[in-house]
Amino acid sequence: VNLVLFEPGEVDAFGTVSVVGVRAAHLLNVLKVTPGSPVRCGVIDGPRGVATVRTVADDRVELVCAFDPGGAAVEDERPRVDVLLALPRPKVMRRLWAQLAAMGVGHIVLTNAERVERNYFDTHWLRPDTYRPLLIEGLQQARDTRLPSVSIHRQFRVLIEQDLDRLFPRTLRLVADPGADRPVSAVTAASLSHGDERRVVLAVGPEGGWNEFERHLLVAHGFHPVSMGSRTLRTDTAAVALLALVHDALNR
Amino acid sequence: VNLVLFEPGEVDAFGTVSVVGVRAAHLLNVLKVTPGSPVRCGVIDGPRGVATVRTVADDRVELVCAFDPGGAAVEDERPRVDVLLALPRPKVMRRLWAQLAAMGVGHIVLTNAERVERNYFDTHWLRPDTYRPLLIEGLQQARDTRLPSVSIHRQFRVLIEQDLDRLFPRTLRLVADPGADRPVSAVTAASLSHGDERRVVLAVGPEGGWNEFERHLLVAHGFHPVSMGSRTLRTDTAAVALLALVHDALNR
Repeated sequence: VNLVLFEPGEVDAFGTVSVVGVRAAHLLNVLKVTPGSPVRCGVIDGPRGVATVRTVADDRVELVCAFDPGGAAVEDERPRVDVLLALPRPKVMRRLWAQLAAMGVGHIVLTNAERVERNYFDTHWLRPDTYRPLLIEGLQQARDTRLPSVSIHRQFRVLIEQDLDRLFPRTLRLVADPGADRPVSAVTAASLSHGDERRVVLAVGPEGGWNEFERHLLVAHGFHPVSMGSRTLRTDTAAVALLALVHDALNR
Repeated sequence: VNLVLFEPGEVDAFGTVSVVGVRAAHLLNVLKVTPGSPVRCGVIDGPRGVATVRTVADDRVELVCAFDPGGAAVEDERPRVDVLLALPRPKVMRRLWAQLAAMGVGHIVLTNAERVERNYFDTHWLRPDTYRPLLIEGLQQARDTRLPSVSIHRQFRVLIEQDLDRLFPRTLRLVADPGADRPVSAVTAASLSHGDERRVVLAVGPEGGWNEFERHLLVAHGFHPVSMGSRTLRTDTAAVALLALVHDALNR
């Protein structure tokens, strides 16, 4: 944990916050704080700052936060990349949550595809009370406060035909495709001019790939195929690798 | 599994191979092969090809391989990226093996650093009989046959001062550094001309970072600092993200 995150309601008007449980144990046993220790902190979807430890007890740490000025405007600076993922198998999805949050994504859209097994949608890793702590773990790793929003769309065709323009207006659309011949950087450079809002949504298919119908529907709705080389990667590895390439292309 | 790998000694002179155990179960239960089914196959550090299932039994599958011509020359075409990693904690190292092999690396060098806990070296995930199956899992995912070589160096200074030039001759050296201002692509473009052998070794520090001595020693031995942005990533996420950027830069 490189930044300790608090829920908006946890910090009082004086910046005081009292933590117990896992966060207190981490502060005491890993960061080994004592009264006076500074700790990088932040509020979920709010500002970052530095907290000073005031008191420590067996299982409780009290801190006073001093937030960076202007830091509350984080809503304007969400990570400029969104992901649209064919739901991977539960074990892989479990690993992905923290990594997606750590890499920096604004919105996570999970959807169905022919090669997604139906029972993948039954996993408890799709329940907010299960995945939210994993997203927060990723944010704390990456020193970010902006929690990705998540939506789950069981009907791929409805998502693409009806919901896409509302979810991703004025966003460059990319789909990872083993058959594509252009890398992320080339498509991004050709498609984004400097006046643009420069947001990207990246679609990553199931491990067996999108079927022909799905691929055509994505392309018909403006997704540009991008190559990720000849290697077939597990969804979590592919998502991290592609997010690195998209962030790099956006920061040129 | 997108390619089934065999050990060099498993395939006889007629291309016949008989598998039991995990691989047979995967062929029968996941790929659902029957006599006549084609299966992508390969020999570790050898050629790739297509195997045809000859017979199936409860726990045994017999196949006949037809290898691609010229495919035995894989030694010449190892992935052009090597990694030098400060040993991460065992849980992270366990996850890394298959991902490194899947992303494509020639040589994996694990080393000590001030912020690596000594007991990390005691994990069974550093024993060849434990990590080799994970590397093979990654190769089978990525349809590659070239097993990364692995070496473990407990003394960072000896590695850098004495072993480096033997391990990485004529190789562009990069070190991921939060304080760097140039991305991988800029350093690679500036440092590699087309006549070069175009190999890269990428050094990734411990989660707390290299200390000042370690950083200076790396730079003094030709490592160019490269930025990975302002986000602090877990070693496995960072390694996958950086490998994606290096492979992309090498393929320009």
